[in-house]
Amino acid sequence: MNKIHIGLLGYGNVGSGVVQWLRKGKKDFAEKFGAEFVLKTLCDRSIQKKDTSGLSRTTLTTKFEDILDDPDIDVVIELIGGMQPAEMIVVEALKKGKHVITANKELIANKGEKLFELAKKQGRHLYFESSVGAGIPIIKTFTEGLAGNQFHSVYGIINGTCNFILDEMTRRDYSFEEALAEAQKRGYAESDPTLDINGMDSTHKLAILVSLAFGKYVKVKNIYTEGIEHISHQDIEYAESLNLCIKLLAIAKKVGNEIEARVHPTLISKDHPLAAINGIYNAVSLEADPLGTILLSGEGAGQMAAASGVISDLVNLSGSGAGSNLFCNVPHTPSHLTMRTIDQIKTKFYIRFMATDKPGVLSKITGVLGQHGISINSVTQKTHNPAATVPVIMLTEYTTEKELRAALKEIHKLPIMKSKPVAIRMEKLC
Amino acid sequence: MNKIHIGLLGYGNVGSGVVQWLRKGKKDFAEKFGAEFVLKTLCDRSIQKKDTSGLSRTTLTTKFEDILDDPDIDVVIELIGGMQPAEMIVVEALKKGKHVITANKELIANKGEKLFELAKKQGRHLYFESSVGAGIPIIKTFTEGLAGNQFHSVYGIINGTCNFILDEMTRRDYSFEEALAEAQKRGYAESDPTLDINGMDSTHKLAILVSLAFGKYVKVKNIYTEGIEHISHQDIEYAESLNLCIKLLAIAKKVGNEIEARVHPTLISKDHPLAAINGIYNAVSLEADPLGTILLSGEGAGQMAAASGVISDLVNLSGSGAGSNLFCNVPHTPSHLTMRTIDQIKTKFYIRFMATDKPGVLSKITGVLGQHGISINSVTQKTHNPAATVPVIMLTEYTTEKELRAALKEIHKLPIMKSKPVAIRMEKLC
Repeated sequence: MNKIHIGLLGYGNVGSGVVQWLRKGKKDFAEKFGAEFVLKTLCDRSIQKKDTSGLSRTTLTTKFEDILDDPDIDVVIELIGGMQPAEMIVVEALKKGKHVITANKELIANKGEKLFELAKKQGRHLYFESSVGAGIPIIKTFTEGLAGNQFHSVYGIINGTCNFILDEMTRRDYSFEEALAEAQKRGYAESDPTLDINGMDSTHKLAILVSLAFGKYVKVKNIYTEGIEHISHQDIEYAESLNLCIKLLAIAKKVGNEIEARVHPTLISKDHPLAAINGIYNAVSLEADPLGTILLSGEGAGQMAAASGVISDLVNLSGSGAGSNLFCNVPHTPSHLTMRTIDQIKTKFYIRFMATDKPGVLSKITGVLGQHGISINSVTQKTHNPAATVPVIMLTEYTTEKELRAALKEIHKLPIMKSKPVAIRMEKLC
Repeated sequence: MNKIHIGLLGYGNVGSGVVQWLRKGKKDFAEKFGAEFVLKTLCDRSIQKKDTSGLSRTTLTTKFEDILDDPDIDVVIELIGGMQPAEMIVVEALKKGKHVITANKELIANKGEKLFELAKKQGRHLYFESSVGAGIPIIKTFTEGLAGNQFHSVYGIINGTCNFILDEMTRRDYSFEEALAEAQKRGYAESDPTLDINGMDSTHKLAILVSLAFGKYVKVKNIYTEGIEHISHQDIEYAESLNLCIKLLAIAKKVGNEIEARVHPTLISKDHPLAAINGIYNAVSLEADPLGTILLSGEGAGQMAAASGVISDLVNLSGSGAGSNLFCNVPHTPSHLTMRTIDQIKTKFYIRFMATDKPGVLSKITGVLGQHGISINSVTQKTHNPAATVPVIMLTEYTTEKELRAALKEIHKLPIMKSKPVAIRMEKLC
């Protein structure tokens, strides 16, 4: 029996899921994997207030030194989240020769390069399956499942909260506020849902996927990020009528020696498999060469879904040989690809103008767009009412962000415009 | 650099894809994985007739002993297919201390238990990612990605040829024969497509998935198998009108201590993600506990898709440590689950009767069904023509195969029946 001593930091929702599973799965781990996982020490700053029944053999502590300084502990599971003290703990654990399993997307996104180098130098594993898509084996698919393939693009729905909100807005005709309240009621959104809704949670995860797909560590702040706060019910309805739907997509592509990475609400065809990813589900679509397009989907959040990634990391760690090459779950040598800024990226746009319903309005709008070299694919104006403001929907040809922003700024100043035009990128997925 | 000597048997479509990739990926393997793969010997019974340009450093042979007896060869890649001599080669290779990578679903389905035991005893890896869904990392997801989870059910579209044919019948209004001809024209179906179309190819793959999901080796002949030969265009149209579509599904479920495993055309809701798997794409939907439902999809056939699974096996093998636990890709201890026969399995059915259009017809049919305890959920008769035979579509409640067959036999004998009733199982997917 392969006996592995664990020090776990962070006894919150996911942490208690992992602890439950370790207890319940004892017999299964022994029979299937020849492994015995011993939870030697559990550290949480509020450990006194938590339910620790059934943990009589585990040392309970509020000091992470009790884990870091214990030479018997083989693997540290970091479930605290955030940058500090998580970063210090992971660094110290690796330096002291311990393997590390973490679900901390923010940490890996910001400090991955440094941490993987350290792990490599120390000859220790640093596993992070739960950092993207919880238990869906997305990380493993990149690093092992499709080993040998080159990656051209990654499209991900990797924030369950946003996907749930957009889905509720679509299916139940909820406003953004109503859908957010529903997500909070069901426990899908944090009491402060800022990082979910403003796209930053997806951006952290995308930074990790970019490093796995292209061997390039990108700075989180260099990934263009736009949240879903400004999506209105009206836009969802127009999208539907065009056989499109709106998803918060994390997009990364390699074109020549350049990569682009961005997170924003995106209009995609309802016929694409990603359009069928509803509710709190997550999905990642990868274009691999020569394999082709692969889609993985499943529940991307929740206590046991996140615990699943941690447990599979633990089982895989227990099975990896002493002489293992350590490439598992560690991105390869960084490449020298350069990153495109959002200004350089060309996409098609959906634009909604709220304008007075007078003859000549269209000519004024299209005139400005034309001056900026932006061609129009279609114009739709469904309602007519000379006494009121009506929506005009335009779908553009490919244009740069820069030109579009400049044109919209100009159009917004026209007296016929009643509010700021809404622009949503469109993406043709493979 | 980790130098690995390969002996490859079978230089057909997939074999030449692997050889191409080994050559093209040389630099990439070295940089990313610190591995050098040397194709030492290539064996094919018609090696003289094949294009072996660029293989000047590889020994070309028609004798597999040249690989098996070579102590320098670390890993044998078996791409011959079929039972013999593939089985003998895999057994001998393992006995001689070589690792084995195979894409041979028939071999693993029929002899997996014996071969995995031998590999374990010999302390050698037996990898088989390409045996199900080609390069889609389905095997790895079971054995590693979701390690620690229990599996409740598996639903798979795992034969691209059948999926393509059903899709063409649906989208292009082709007859079965026309769609098959199209598949052959495009190279998706063998010149003898029997094993694809009669479902046996899916059955081999399902046997492998059952062993991975439930730790139970089932005999291929005990898996109920029905092909797509009898699906008519009419049934596809009726299905559409009921918001259903017909897929050749491989289904395995665990209920208590019993498992069921079956392959047959199945009516599923068009709203389920599996309904969106079109053309030659494959997909597997797994219900894992506690993770939830996971879906993997991608191209499940084709030269490079199959080669992708082989290459990822090879890369993973090169990275596994000498002290590795060897659980990778090897099913766990067989469980003592019993298998349900098809007679015991309850499903709902779609039934199409071709009957004369007279009053009393419905009452006669439902009378017989009622005597067999079969309840009807809905009856549809779209066309009326007292002078002709018209289709009557019935959807039943849950019933056993046995009762249904008995009832249909009786109904077929009624003078009002103009042809054998067509019955297709319906499945409510989670």
